[in-house]
Amino acid sequence: MESLTNQESVIEGRNAVIEAYRSGKPIDKLFVLENCQDGPIMTIKREAKKHGTLVKYVTRERLDQMSETGRHQGVIAYAAAYEYAEVEDILAAPRRKGEDPFLILLDGIEDPHNLGAIVRTANLAGAHGVILPKNRAAGLTAAVAKASAGALNYTPVARVTNLAQTIEDLKKEGLWFVCADMDGTLMYDLNLKGPIGLVIGGEGEGVGRLVREKCDMTAAIPMKGDIDSLNASVAAGVLAYEILRQRRG
Amino acid sequence: MESLTNQESVIEGRNAVIEAYRSGKPIDKLFVLENCQDGPIMTIKREAKKHGTLVKYVTRERLDQMSETGRHQGVIAYAAAYEYAEVEDILAAPRRKGEDPFLILLDGIEDPHNLGAIVRTANLAGAHGVILPKNRAAGLTAAVAKASAGALNYTPVARVTNLAQTIEDLKKEGLWFVCADMDGTLMYDLNLKGPIGLVIGGEGEGVGRLVREKCDMTAAIPMKGDIDSLNASVAAGVLAYEILRQRRG
Repeated sequence: MESLTNQESVIEGRNAVIEAYRSGKPIDKLFVLENCQDGPIMTIKREAKKHGTLVKYVTRERLDQMSETGRHQGVIAYAAAYEYAEVEDILAAPRRKGEDPFLILLDGIEDPHNLGAIVRTANLAGAHGVILPKNRAAGLTAAVAKASAGALNYTPVARVTNLAQTIEDLKKEGLWFVCADMDGTLMYDLNLKGPIGLVIGGEGEGVGRLVREKCDMTAAIPMKGDIDSLNASVAAGVLAYEILRQRRG
Repeated sequence: MESLTNQESVIEGRNAVIEAYRSGKPIDKLFVLENCQDGPIMTIKREAKKHGTLVKYVTRERLDQMSETGRHQGVIAYAAAYEYAEVEDILAAPRRKGEDPFLILLDGIEDPHNLGAIVRTANLAGAHGVILPKNRAAGLTAAVAKASAGALNYTPVARVTNLAQTIEDLKKEGLWFVCADMDGTLMYDLNLKGPIGLVIGGEGEGVGRLVREKCDMTAAIPMKGDIDSLNASVAAGVLAYEILRQRRG
């Protein structure tokens, strides 16, 4: 952990990015200069497709801003600082311990500090793992690792192509899903015991409609104030601890 | 809110800083080039003393790093983006509404994102205000305002010279104090109803000894994981919502 820096997870320049793919380094996101079609860039795009990397096409101005070296050559890649787990790996731990599975699913948490803080909360509130969607999430970068305060070493994080489909699959394993939603049922009035997946949305848009429709319950945190919503990692913490409170009682 | 930027809360250069003091702008922190003793700098130091600003003496290299304009002339000031309230103002609201006061006291929360998220939580969990110590806290900068998602417009934040003394004073008003501490009593086993002050420590050191000794109770969040502690704003959220749960029940 200590040796990680943000720099180590950013890869700039054509050869460096191609080399990273060839060495098997997990790349989370790729930023490519728009309208750029030459040979090396096409090679990188092919690698990106093969490895399921999210590709974003951006202006030269944006790449210049993002660049730390000033020599991006039209491509900047963000490599995962940690390796993702498989959903199956996450389920193995509760099975082994004879516990009801408790997973946290994040739909659109893009801020690395929030993601790190949520992995940290998952670790301490007794959740067995965290699941992110491939296309709407922060990767497991050094910033996430730092914000997780070491929890990324213990709590597995999986990344899936289709969160709604993953929820369907996990329902067959006996999990119930509860979605954070300020218009939902007050969390104290729900039964949150048993095998459960807690779904938390991003700060802007909340949980997406397709994912929300797959959930069995919607849980609201009581709101006594003037503003709209809690910070996403605080909301995740309050709900995760309500689940913990009910499970222990 | 929308018009605030980090830039607006940073004041660089001798004349600009002296002018800010003279116009009554609240300055939170002042960074001064070490071993610098000339006239304008001495004037600034006098103003800082008069207004109770925290002064830090730093190297030229550090100032150059911090500078946004490149023309700091040996001094950079951070102005509060929002005005502090008085503790008395915070107590006025519950008195008016006939509610038991619920305050959140922060001992050493130095990260503006955490401070903002906690003000946001205070607003929504029904706390009447937040109290910070002058010497161990982030100021109410634009970054704090942004992280508070507008809560700084509603929830008053006071700054006091001596947090332990403030706790003594508030006890005379009938408040009980509970300190977050992982070696404390499990939060579910405490009676957290009635007029209460929740004391949260910084991530590194937790609540200071002098402040902790003034508290009536210590509350522990259950920890089922491998790492040491929650993010400070998540811990504040979990405890504030446990207080809310008990108060409504």
